[in-house]
Amino acid sequence: MDIFDRLKVAAAADWAAYVEHDFLRQMGDGSLPQAAFRTYLAQDYLFLIQFARAYALATYKSRTLADMRAAKAGLSAILDLEMDLHIRLCGRWGLSPADLEAAPEHQATVAYTRYVLDCGQSGDLLDLHVALAPCVIGYAEIGARLAAAIGPALESHPYREWIGEYAGEAFQNVARDARRHLDELAARAMTERRFADLAALFGKASRLEADFWQMGLDGAR
Amino acid sequence: MDIFDRLKVAAAADWAAYVEHDFLRQMGDGSLPQAAFRTYLAQDYLFLIQFARAYALATYKSRTLADMRAAKAGLSAILDLEMDLHIRLCGRWGLSPADLEAAPEHQATVAYTRYVLDCGQSGDLLDLHVALAPCVIGYAEIGARLAAAIGPALESHPYREWIGEYAGEAFQNVARDARRHLDELAARAMTERRFADLAALFGKASRLEADFWQMGLDGAR
Amino acid sequence: MDIFDRLKVAAAADWAAYVEHDFLRQMGDGSLPQAAFRTYLAQDYLFLIQFARAYALATYKSRTLADMRAAKAGLSAILDLEMDLHIRLCGRWGLSPADLEAAPEHQATVAYTRYVLDCGQSGDLLDLHVALAPCVIGYAEIGARLAAAIGPALESHPYREWIGEYAGEAFQNVARDARRHLDELAARAMTERRFADLAALFGKASRLEADFWQMGLDGAR
Amino acid sequence: MDIFDRLKVAAAADWAAYVEHDFLRQMGDGSLPQAAFRTYLAQDYLFLIQFARAYALATYKSRTLADMRAAKAGLSAILDLEMDLHIRLCGRWGLSPADLEAAPEHQATVAYTRYVLDCGQSGDLLDLHVALAPCVIGYAEIGARLAAAIGPALESHPYREWIGEYAGEAFQNVARDARRHLDELAARAMTERRFADLAALFGKASRLEADFWQMGLDGAR
Repeated sequence: MDIFDRLKVAAAADWAAYVEHDFLRQMGDGSLPQAAFRTYLAQDYLFLIQFARAYALATYKSRTLADMRAAKAGLSAILDLEMDLHIRLCGRWGLSPADLEAAPEHQATVAYTRYVLDCGQSGDLLDLHVALAPCVIGYAEIGARLAAAIGPALESHPYREWIGEYAGEAFQNVARDARRHLDELAARAMTERRFADLAALFGKASRLEADFWQMGLDGAR
Repeated sequence: MDIFDRLKVAAAADWAAYVEHDFLRQMGDGSLPQAAFRTYLAQDYLFLIQFARAYALATYKSRTLADMRAAKAGLSAILDLEMDLHIRLCGRWGLSPADLEAAPEHQATVAYTRYVLDCGQSGDLLDLHVALAPCVIGYAEIGARLAAAIGPALESHPYREWIGEYAGEAFQNVARDARRHLDELAARAMTERRFADLAALFGKASRLEADFWQMGLDGAR
Repeated sequence: MDIFDRLKVAAAADWAAYVEHDFLRQMGDGSLPQAAFRTYLAQDYLFLIQFARAYALATYKSRTLADMRAAKAGLSAILDLEMDLHIRLCGRWGLSPADLEAAPEHQATVAYTRYVLDCGQSGDLLDLHVALAPCVIGYAEIGARLAAAIGPALESHPYREWIGEYAGEAFQNVARDARRHLDELAARAMTERRFADLAALFGKASRLEADFWQMGLDGAR
Repeated sequence: MDIFDRLKVAAAADWAAYVEHDFLRQMGDGSLPQAAFRTYLAQDYLFLIQFARAYALATYKSRTLADMRAAKAGLSAILDLEMDLHIRLCGRWGLSPADLEAAPEHQATVAYTRYVLDCGQSGDLLDLHVALAPCVIGYAEIGARLAAAIGPALESHPYREWIGEYAGEAFQNVARDARRHLDELAARAMTERRFADLAALFGKASRLEADFWQMGLDGAR
């Protein structure tokens, strides 16, 4: 078991609350209200901005050029690529760039993003990447699972674009690299005594991700 | 108008959502469910820990010995005094220290506290103290207002202890000092062009405080 | 006068100690010992790594996407371009990548780079950019001044490559942009009462840059 | 061997350069010029201010109340006690509080203090305390060694007060606690693969401390 699998086992209940959330079940069977998805999309835009800051922080905290370049690549991927993809996706769901700028940041968005940044500032690179893992590696797992469950019907599925992006090879590779990097960081800085702290951190981050889905569902009420 | 009054005016809707929240209305007329108050108390304990970290951050960010000593006094007040007061208050409401340690940190607690810390890390001392103001100065305003509205009936009021603490002279003095300090920081580092950013920050912090009351009410359902 | 000119005037003695340092005088007339330049080059490599961290910190501290992207561009310029240029320049002066990796970081390098980073962490974006200004904007001024003084003789000058790089249009543009950005940050966050603090910070950073030249000269003894 | 002894062995040359520095040899035999000691004293005052910030940072980075309280105790010890002791000691050597305020911070002071703070911001609590160890634990070792070598002659020794303070029971206890705390942090967060990084950090901090003594000697020239 690599460190990511160990974390999932140690925080099994929080992880399940996240990856088996109703938001995802409804997305899978296509019953997710569009208003819920739109609420999610607008907040996810704000999320991405904070996420970019987390990668900037990882670059700052790096102690080797290799680590700096890897973190900078993550930062560039968000600022130069994912933001644009996201803005285009939002556009197809009726959210203009102006709508995105005008959306107030929701409590759930503040909670997860600032928690990640605080883990990074108060801890080391490993803490930061464990806090990021539910998002980076988790979305790949969620995308792949949904795509497998839906099968060929994905082609005409209302959420095919979102699912396709995270199930797609490009994002699966990003997640695989992130997972390997997490394992390397753990090999260097994780003692068994520290594992419990990291598992608690991972569980909390997963719960905050679950709250993020819930915020989407609540937005449709 | 000092800076605090200007911020309240500029973020009037968010401020009202915070200081006129149902949680406080119900506390004032005594109808607040005990479960709501207990939920609040347990989270407020976790809040205090992060709050102490914010004062430690203010100490670190200080550039004069006078500023360092002032921030350190705030830190000591929390760690050496308020934590114990809070634990005793919790005890009288049936929450043991073990209960407090076992309570998972709620999304609302994470959101406000880590937002404050992130404002501090990404900005300067003024940003940090503006983010803290709804709590430090706001609680004094809330306490005084509730005590005035209840009048002599406070003596037998179910929430007399909490209200009495924040309406009391000691805390009113703390808030007055904090307000003066905020004004000094603003005189040194606030341009008119910056005011809009600070007002947005203050409004967001006030909204996150309102969410914190709501978390208490939700806990009673 | 823009903010940069005001800072130079306010910290005139420290600025002169930096831009009129013997290291530069000897570089200009070609008498600078090669050992001094090599000492400087090896430390400047270590300097660049910390400098990249400073731009990562600026990205983290940014509050608008435009600021984030500008800071990220600075970070990319260092990691993707300047490091390679520098390694090639070092190579032509007989310093291999292995030599650069093996060089212990000198006190002067630690002092200036960590001072910049600490200004950034303890202050706001303006503090960080004022601390960076002697380097980014100062090198352009130094390069242009040396090139002008040497004139056409630059072609066969022993330090033509270094002088040419910083006098060249590409770097002059980088410095011009940095100067404009500094002015914008000052317009947003600088009060007259704050100016004295910024001038002290700028003066100290300039003195630490002068110490950095001195470290080069000392290396030739 | 505890972690502190392991670090000393791993960074033996840097450690020796620090604890066997000429400044200390001359202090021991009484030949240290008063001007050297005065230069040191004035910079050590500025050092203490940054040191207090390091303990504030440790408080901020703590994840348990026990760790926060321990770090806060260190912060209070500096701000409430050591600063006053130091100012009085400086007074007896002819340095007034105004002299101390007016002294520009030397490169050596900037280098070690900001290096410590940067280790703390970019790493975890263990990194921060390893960077602090040469000072906190090292001064106790230096004081005890000098006192033992001088013996009963200490009573009339020109540097009896400084030596007596660091050889004295109070400071020896502080150092013993710091050493135990370092060992606990290492037990929690140090893998064998990480040890090499920590030893490099410790060696660098020791070298910067040696440079600090050298700055004192240079001040007497």
